[in-house]
Amino acid sequence: MSDRIIVALDAMGGDKAPDMVVKGAGIAAQRFPQADFILFGVESRIQSVLDKLPHLKGRCTIHHTDDFVTGDAKPSTALRSGRNSSMRLTLDAVAAGRAQCAISAGNTGALMAMAKFSLKMLPGIDRPAIASFYPTKRGESVMLDLGANVECDADNLVQFAVLGEVFARTVLGLSHPSVGLLNVGSEELKGNDAVRGAAMRLRAPGSPINFSGYVEGDQIGAGKVDVVVTDGFTGNIAIKTAEGTAKLFGDFMRAAFNNSIMAKIGYMFARSSLNKLRERLDVRRYNGAVFLGLDGIAVKSHGGTDELGFASAIGVGIDMVINGCLEKIRDDIAHMSAIGDSSEKPPQAVL
Amino acid sequence: MSDRIIVALDAMGGDKAPDMVVKGAGIAAQRFPQADFILFGVESRIQSVLDKLPHLKGRCTIHHTDDFVTGDAKPSTALRSGRNSSMRLTLDAVAAGRAQCAISAGNTGALMAMAKFSLKMLPGIDRPAIASFYPTKRGESVMLDLGANVECDADNLVQFAVLGEVFARTVLGLSHPSVGLLNVGSEELKGNDAVRGAAMRLRAPGSPINFSGYVEGDQIGAGKVDVVVTDGFTGNIAIKTAEGTAKLFGDFMRAAFNNSIMAKIGYMFARSSLNKLRERLDVRRYNGAVFLGLDGIAVKSHGGTDELGFASAIGVGIDMVINGCLEKIRDDIAHMSAIGDSSEKPPQAVL
Repeated sequence: MSDRIIVALDAMGGDKAPDMVVKGAGIAAQRFPQADFILFGVESRIQSVLDKLPHLKGRCTIHHTDDFVTGDAKPSTALRSGRNSSMRLTLDAVAAGRAQCAISAGNTGALMAMAKFSLKMLPGIDRPAIASFYPTKRGESVMLDLGANVECDADNLVQFAVLGEVFARTVLGLSHPSVGLLNVGSEELKGNDAVRGAAMRLRAPGSPINFSGYVEGDQIGAGKVDVVVTDGFTGNIAIKTAEGTAKLFGDFMRAAFNNSIMAKIGYMFARSSLNKLRERLDVRRYNGAVFLGLDGIAVKSHGGTDELGFASAIGVGIDMVINGCLEKIRDDIAHMSAIGDSSEKPPQAVL
Repeated sequence: MSDRIIVALDAMGGDKAPDMVVKGAGIAAQRFPQADFILFGVESRIQSVLDKLPHLKGRCTIHHTDDFVTGDAKPSTALRSGRNSSMRLTLDAVAAGRAQCAISAGNTGALMAMAKFSLKMLPGIDRPAIASFYPTKRGESVMLDLGANVECDADNLVQFAVLGEVFARTVLGLSHPSVGLLNVGSEELKGNDAVRGAAMRLRAPGSPINFSGYVEGDQIGAGKVDVVVTDGFTGNIAIKTAEGTAKLFGDFMRAAFNNSIMAKIGYMFARSSLNKLRERLDVRRYNGAVFLGLDGIAVKSHGGTDELGFASAIGVGIDMVINGCLEKIRDDIAHMSAIGDSSEKPPQAVL
């Protein structure tokens, strides 16, 4: 068996597709010499960008299709009528074993619906979760779910904890990542039933999770834990609120440096340091939200990203392949189910 | 009837009480010449601070009590055994009409439980909400609920919309503030039942609310709407996430300016502009979370604040009195109840 990693790319997803997808593949090809690519989309448009990237040419094949999923398509419609879309064919390549991971910057809802249908869920996982990295004071942490499930019960949150823990272990390289549940306070009785129920199970003797208890909103950025677990409604709002606050702060800083001649001179002196900070906080570095819980690797890139951001998303997918993320999730889910809440669940039906 | 405004102060609530409470009253006394104060707490300790503030002396009375609510007291315990606590007496003064507003920096849960018991709910409001200001790109907005209710239905959210709208109108002085519901996307079918049901009622013909639809997390800081409405779980996490992100950003900036000699020199030049920005974003300016929906005005100050922050919280209470906030909420709730029907079903969710 070859040691090459085959990456399936939806060349038509994202605002600047297919250009940024092909160029992103070019950057990823340099970072990962072991990777080859299949590009799904309109051949003529892909080819014209590819012609300018000789180093990528020999390492990628184009699978032509005219059909693609639009940004405003309903998930159910995309699922029903998008069987030949670039997005669907990208996922199908992973399902069929022709590629090890799929990357798309297209419509999130459609991608999630198609990924569930094409890749199927891992045994023991009821619903997929969207996970992503974000910068903290201590380095980087993982947060999930970021919007796949607007309502979650305790079982979902426990499964997300396992998914997020394995993801942090394999992709961030942490040996025993700490996991926290996002809540409105740190005391045991705070929060809703789902959060308190999940905490009880994660705290139980024999749990494979290094559980640190509840995490409040201001402790996400402080990096109190490596993995922040929450439902998709709260997680989506928390991550976007953090993005919005960072943007607001950046706008205020820019205005402050334009406020006076003295401030402008100050900026000239501090520019090199401030540019380093900007690089560290560059959202493109954190691009690539992973759909965890599926029996296959699918990464969603931000739709508005450029080639650098798309290359980061490809990197997330390749890292997951290299580190055997799926296999580790399977092991941990089996372990968690064995020590879980069998007494609280109704017995299985006997045929 | 006198035009004086009487403010009841819990002198024993907060980390730096009673010093910061008395000094905060001193600052507020200068800002609001029409205000007088009743200080509830240990007389000897209050008196020793008051002796240094001659301008405040003639405008305040001390109501002695030895009893106070501790920071870690359970709300139910505080309610049962704290009948003579400084916190309870402060609220009772408003309930009995001896003061027009109550301010405390003590235990939030205890204050909420006591305020509900002592002041009672306004007719037509099922639960109180915690509301606060925050800085945005456009100026200031209001967000609620910030943690009083971890679970909310559509009716609660509609009531919060009315409460928040009146609060923004009276305290921020906006003539027809825009109101948005915090959600995971802007499309009509996004979110959970509570959010979709509330949107349907707020959008109904005849609604007195200037409803702008859904708001995403990154649009809070952008100031897309004047009033952001959400349940207490999400709101608590969103506001703390914003605080945490702002703190993280501040820490990163400090580190960047200490990064090199050049950056340090740059900071010297830009210092005056950066200090102005720091002042604008000073959390003490936004101190004072209001308990809305009660038949009386109660303001919660941050427990860790100093006298400047406490003076801001007093200012919020006095502004509400001056602008007749309670009367306006009563009118609008009556109007809102007359239209809209909570028995109608919201549209079905997608995905």
